Amino acid sequence: MNERISALLKRKPGPEIITAEGWVRTKRDSKTVCFLELNDGSCLKGLQVVIDKVSLNNDALLSSITTGSSVTCRGPIVESAGGNQEVEMASTDVTLIGECPVDTYPLQKKRHSVEYLREISHLRPRTNMFGAVARVRNTLSFAVHQYFQENGFVYVNTPLISASDCEGAGEMFQVTTLDFDKVPRTEEGQVDYSKDFFGKKSFLTVSGQLEGETYATALKNIYTFGPTFRAENSNTKRHLAEFWMVEPEMAFCDVTGDMEIAESFLKYLFKSVLEKCPEDMAFFSKFVEAGVDKTLQHVVDTPFAHLTYTEAVKILEKYNDKFDYSVSWGSDLQSEHEKFLTEVVCKSPVIVTDYPKEIKAFYMKLNDDGKTVRGMDVLVPRLGEIIGGSERESNIDVLTARMKELNLNPQDYWWYLDLRRYGSVPHAGFGLGFERAVQYVTGMANIRDVIPYPRAPKLADF
Amino acid sequence: MNERISALLKRKPGPEIITAEGWVRTKRDSKTVCFLELNDGSCLKGLQVVIDKVSLNNDALLSSITTGSSVTCRGPIVESAGGNQEVEMASTDVTLIGECPVDTYPLQKKRHSVEYLREISHLRPRTNMFGAVARVRNTLSFAVHQYFQENGFVYVNTPLISASDCEGAGEMFQVTTLDFDKVPRTEEGQVDYSKDFFGKKSFLTVSGQLEGETYATALKNIYTFGPTFRAENSNTKRHLAEFWMVEPEMAFCDVTGDMEIAESFLKYLFKSVLEKCPEDMAFFSKFVEAGVDKTLQHVVDTPFAHLTYTEAVKILEKYNDKFDYSVSWGSDLQSEHEKFLTEVVCKSPVIVTDYPKEIKAFYMKLNDDGKTVRGMDVLVPRLGEIIGGSERESNIDVLTARMKELNLNPQDYWWYLDLRRYGSVPHAGFGLGFERAVQYVTGMANIRDVIPYPRAPKLADF
Repeated sequence: MNERISALLKRKPGPEIITAEGWVRTKRDSKTVCFLELNDGSCLKGLQVVIDKVSLNNDALLSSITTGSSVTCRGPIVESAGGNQEVEMASTDVTLIGECPVDTYPLQKKRHSVEYLREISHLRPRTNMFGAVARVRNTLSFAVHQYFQENGFVYVNTPLISASDCEGAGEMFQVTTLDFDKVPRTEEGQVDYSKDFFGKKSFLTVSGQLEGETYATALKNIYTFGPTFRAENSNTKRHLAEFWMVEPEMAFCDVTGDMEIAESFLKYLFKSVLEKCPEDMAFFSKFVEAGVDKTLQHVVDTPFAHLTYTEAVKILEKYNDKFDYSVSWGSDLQSEHEKFLTEVVCKSPVIVTDYPKEIKAFYMKLNDDGKTVRGMDVLVPRLGEIIGGSERESNIDVLTARMKELNLNPQDYWWYLDLRRYGSVPHAGFGLGFERAVQYVTGMANIRDVIPYPRAPKLADF
Repeated sequence: MNERISALLKRKPGPEIITAEGWVRTKRDSKTVCFLELNDGSCLKGLQVVIDKVSLNNDALLSSITTGSSVTCRGPIVESAGGNQEVEMASTDVTLIGECPVDTYPLQKKRHSVEYLREISHLRPRTNMFGAVARVRNTLSFAVHQYFQENGFVYVNTPLISASDCEGAGEMFQVTTLDFDKVPRTEEGQVDYSKDFFGKKSFLTVSGQLEGETYATALKNIYTFGPTFRAENSNTKRHLAEFWMVEPEMAFCDVTGDMEIAESFLKYLFKSVLEKCPEDMAFFSKFVEAGVDKTLQHVVDTPFAHLTYTEAVKILEKYNDKFDYSVSWGSDLQSEHEKFLTEVVCKSPVIVTDYPKEIKAFYMKLNDDGKTVRGMDVLVPRLGEIIGGSERESNIDVLTARMKELNLNPQDYWWYLDLRRYGSVPHAGFGLGFERAVQYVTGMANIRDVIPYPRAPKLADF
């Protein structure tokens, strides 16, 4: 393979004849010289190729090269005469690989709106912004794997389709091979799911946590990183119907260990992006959201504060006149409260623990007070909650009682309860919505712009 | 976090008091000493804990510790008296964390059948075999990411749900929020998909390749690694309804480059497992399939042979009396033919290229002969095809003609054709079915045993 442009830009000037290949971002002409800016997605910056028109002596070729064309250029790397780059290529050996008709190409040189670019999601990675998003997303993804692999976690692929009855009710997509025009029926007139592919009514998962726990209680430290689905009719800038989740789970670990890992994990992710994508982060800070890189650096550098929910509510109650929603013990914290805690009260990321059991999931470990559970949410400036986790209830009697309180049928959870029947251990974990993290890191306003092909109500094109 | 058992086993004997935590695999008793074998999934081997019953003076505690119990033991690491391990722990400080009732625990000390273990998929990672599968699968997963990251590929998450009309017909799962009991209808009596969540009939993807190409033609080298789905009614040892696929795609790359990357990728994967999981690989070779590790080493060490399909058929035809299915030009190669080519003819992995267009997909680049396409399949001993790939058709006219030949509507593929309209480039890629690879590496007979929760006809439990 030929060297990528990111590597060519780091070369010193020299006589060696190099091959550069990529797509033309811009073309400028003077009487004797043609400048092409070549990009291949390896970095934000392009390689400037300077073509001596007299030596080339092929104006027809040059005029057929336009924005979006794919080309190969050969020549030496030379010191750049212009001020925008250190090196450029001098070439008189140019090959047009694929033309790009100017009149119909949907990407013109001007700046396009993100809404327009969403309609051409198949071409938007060719823009500076979406190329940068793709690179940062890639860096974050790999950092997720690196962090867990370096710390001895086993990557586990939990199932996407499930006929298990223990997923949360509602807001799930059904998966089927039945024909809506010929629905099989039982004698009682019910839909006969024994005729469906899986023999039961089946859904797309909303979380891999419960299955993740089955592997944590065998391998100690595991993580999942895969797609999850929510059939929520939310047309917001923060909701997707299909998104990727990171869910580590640790056995022999309590909520304190959980918080330590969440903090070190988040710092590791942000540090990776700042170190590996400085050019892209500078772009986001300049063109998308000012200071987004500084916010990340702040999270990396600052020890996370800790507050119990009860402490947090006591503080917030004093400022109730500032909020759209006033807070009192028992109410769920809104994004405005979370941001206030981290930005104003603590001036640092903060982990809030010990929430009222009524506002948290059934599997969170009940505290001795019988009222609060060992949940922990990590709040960061500019966003609020970025991670939600908990120590899990490991006592089978308490867990069964909680299920019944919430009208869940313990029999549906027989295998989940087995983990508490046989060699139960304290264990804990958390979830990071991956696109929320990419959104946070890049400052992109709409979550639909940080995943290649967003899925949302009425939106499943490409 | 306390040290994992894999680390404890590497310690030198010394006076330091260490904490070991894990699940009891076996317990043996003599009059004065109790031996616990503690496993935490960090490696195949357990830590032997030797408890002086006289010093402990708590027979009630010891009798409540059984196979499957979770315990914490504290004590120094000492040289082992027995011959099975170099070091062990001497402990008189033992805590039972979670009991494991002997009479009901589904995992007894005896060897269970894989069929039985599949019914308790939530507990099977606690066995030697499935712990080893989980660790090898993890190592392979990370090796996939490492290989591509080291070579400048961008990880891209292509969509799982799609309402795009260009997926292959049939064998797809429908995704819906419509109610089978209240199917909305248009005036013409058709199912009114405008009322469905995505506003169109939507499916689970069978491949991320087409969307992957959109990113490769912007970022040059990309890869996907995510779940794909096949609603195929195949109850075999090699089919899953939900499985993970690795699909790299390279722009400015022809079939030759494609083959080079496939070979170096496969060697990288297998080398990683051999280096990082020697203990687990020895287990698979001893208990699952003899010589499985040597086969991998052979693939790593041997340059891949190359044959065109036409050459391969000419060779195979001579041996037609040996095969269940006889071969002639135009027929698809069966697994028996593929194995013969790699095991008998070439005695090395072999890449077969230039297949008849009739037996390959529409997007493969047509050769100048007008009859064959630039597909390439990688065949390995003991299995046959492990990777299938091709250079893609980059000429819009040829591609459109191929679509029409196959009764595909080019309008459904407008965005895919755009890649050939605007700055088209030679590009190529391939696909590796991840579970097939894990099966190959471990020698496990049934593919349902190399994914935590297999999905197949009538099977979507947990």
